[in-house]
Amino acid sequence: MRGEPTDDAAARACLTAAADAGDPLMGELIEEHGAADIWAALRDGARLPLPDGDRGSRQAARAQRWRARATGIDADALLCAAAELGGRLVVPGDPEWPGRLDRLGERRPYALWLRGVHDLRHACLRSVAIVGSRAATAYGLHVAAGLACGLAERSWTVVSGGAYGIDGAAHRGALAGGAPTVAVLACGLDIDYPRGHAALFADVAARGTLVTEHPLGTPPTRHGFLVRNRIIAALTPGTVVVEAGLRSGALNTARHAQDLCSQLMAVPGPVTSALSGGCHRLLREWQATCVTDAADVAEQLGPIGEELRPGRGTALARDGLDAESQRVLDAVPDRVGAGTATVAVAAGLGLDAALGRLGLLAAGGFIERCPTGWRTRPDSGGQGR
Amino acid sequence: MRGEPTDDAAARACLTAAADAGDPLMGELIEEHGAADIWAALRDGARLPLPDGDRGSRQAARAQRWRARATGIDADALLCAAAELGGRLVVPGDPEWPGRLDRLGERRPYALWLRGVHDLRHACLRSVAIVGSRAATAYGLHVAAGLACGLAERSWTVVSGGAYGIDGAAHRGALAGGAPTVAVLACGLDIDYPRGHAALFADVAARGTLVTEHPLGTPPTRHGFLVRNRIIAALTPGTVVVEAGLRSGALNTARHAQDLCSQLMAVPGPVTSALSGGCHRLLREWQATCVTDAADVAEQLGPIGEELRPGRGTALARDGLDAESQRVLDAVPDRVGAGTATVAVAAGLGLDAALGRLGLLAAGGFIERCPTGWRTRPDSGGQGR
Repeated sequence: MRGEPTDDAAARACLTAAADAGDPLMGELIEEHGAADIWAALRDGARLPLPDGDRGSRQAARAQRWRARATGIDADALLCAAAELGGRLVVPGDPEWPGRLDRLGERRPYALWLRGVHDLRHACLRSVAIVGSRAATAYGLHVAAGLACGLAERSWTVVSGGAYGIDGAAHRGALAGGAPTVAVLACGLDIDYPRGHAALFADVAARGTLVTEHPLGTPPTRHGFLVRNRIIAALTPGTVVVEAGLRSGALNTARHAQDLCSQLMAVPGPVTSALSGGCHRLLREWQATCVTDAADVAEQLGPIGEELRPGRGTALARDGLDAESQRVLDAVPDRVGAGTATVAVAAGLGLDAALGRLGLLAAGGFIERCPTGWRTRPDSGGQGR
Repeated sequence: MRGEPTDDAAARACLTAAADAGDPLMGELIEEHGAADIWAALRDGARLPLPDGDRGSRQAARAQRWRARATGIDADALLCAAAELGGRLVVPGDPEWPGRLDRLGERRPYALWLRGVHDLRHACLRSVAIVGSRAATAYGLHVAAGLACGLAERSWTVVSGGAYGIDGAAHRGALAGGAPTVAVLACGLDIDYPRGHAALFADVAARGTLVTEHPLGTPPTRHGFLVRNRIIAALTPGTVVVEAGLRSGALNTARHAQDLCSQLMAVPGPVTSALSGGCHRLLREWQATCVTDAADVAEQLGPIGEELRPGRGTALARDGLDAESQRVLDAVPDRVGAGTATVAVAAGLGLDAALGRLGLLAAGGFIERCPTGWRTRPDSGGQGR
């Protein structure tokens, strides 16, 4: 699926398995010393360059835990297992890395494991998070599905979790509306949690993207769900809470959205319904914007990614591509697709150079992944003109 | 029920019959020249001191209409007819005149016709307007009644119109909660509109106050309803829209509340209900505050009139009253009540002086009207301490 991973990517893959997700201490260490050095130190049992100060002993305990886990971790094994499942690793600096995640600072994911046809960065440029309660009412499910479908029809990518209730309704609505949808999981890509969503996850992988910061085999935990919420909020310029009680985890996602200065929106409901209580609190106390349909949400988000809508050209004009990228784009077939090696030969480039160009073309919305490798996006204008 | 009306009050009574309600030109003339002079000019067919300028001809036509109507108008007849019905006239400067109405400027009512036991100024000090659609849903009626009842239990006076739907539910809820309620009508006090609310209006008159700027016999008109809404908004420090479609007259009341810098609140509902569309627009576009119950409304209005709550003393401490007022207050019996003349004799004052003191005591919440005249308010601390 791609060439040899860089030292940085391989190290980051290992760190997603060794450290707890979203640990700001690990984020700080990676930022200051690079993932490769930190991973090497952990693997070799060397001393970690921990910051000085009072936090020392707690940090040392944490480093000890990382070290204990590091013993059994092998980058090739992690990457191969993911590839067998159709998964891939994306790290900061990759063309597919969504720049919005960098807003998380030291809580930025070390790396993301993905499964799906769409380029994550491109899909998230024009995206909105739709979240809410697992125990949703018929009203909430109806509104979430309708909202997601309406947004999909307006070419907005829907981002949500993988839970029953509002999450599931949002993905189904988005798929019905014909746009990609992004499900951010709190477990490994090989685990269908909840079980009843196995078919939905397969649909999302086929027509959108599954995302997680956990390597294969990681089971979901309560902590995992909470830190997962920051990714849902950070991938998008706006978060809509459809139906949530006062103690719903969706309010945690809303808090992340507010901390990130994203647009925070809430769908009202009957004041007699406890499951709308969280939404009403967001409206009253958090200055969330009241939205009632897809048009309201689209208006609130303004012209974000307007240039990505079909028929309006792509994020990058084809004319703006350099000669080498244009050659690679010309070598990518539509519909049937072709593997990286085939494209490289057709474009007269080496494998690594071709792969780099393909990543940039995907991030720019010209091409997308498909079972055979790469193909042009039907709405990109990449072919024929 | 009271002494001879002043020239000003008699003139204002006539002007409520001669001019359309809330006419800013009439408001301007009264403000500049006094009601008595303007009424005398109209009655005698003299030239009105109309402002100069382009507006001349339209204003002259209006003045002509006033003059035509003025012919048959007699202050004594208007006041006697109202008194027979248990009504009274309140004009700016009276102790019972609600000062908040002065915010309306040249659109301030020329005078108000009232029927009911409560002192209007005192009742409105701690008050909130509850408005919404006539064609309300079961949800809206349920919420309006519950909200009004909860506010009444917190000693807030509810102010609304007299229509079916939200208005009626609000009055019924307030009466159930045991607090006075104020119904602002768009017709004369002798007209039950709508007919089906005749019993409700009788209840409001017995346990609250009916208010209108129209003299007896005036039928409701579309224009009357619209100008009426400004009074509902102006009597109160805050307006709650419970359930309203996008074209509901309640949004007109909301506009007045906003223009007056009152607190504007809206109750959300299902986004699938067209009858909540107006409320959601208020939340999204008018920066209305989302409220879901009486506690939310009370919190939003803050400590307005907190000192008027039972057990917390009255707006004016009894100790703060001058000796003459204390004598009058001591002369007012509780429960059974007494007429003005009886009180005057007991207090050793003339009728006019006693009446002036009684008005101030009522406006301060010490006493209230009753079928026999005046009695102390049960929660005022006016008796026994």
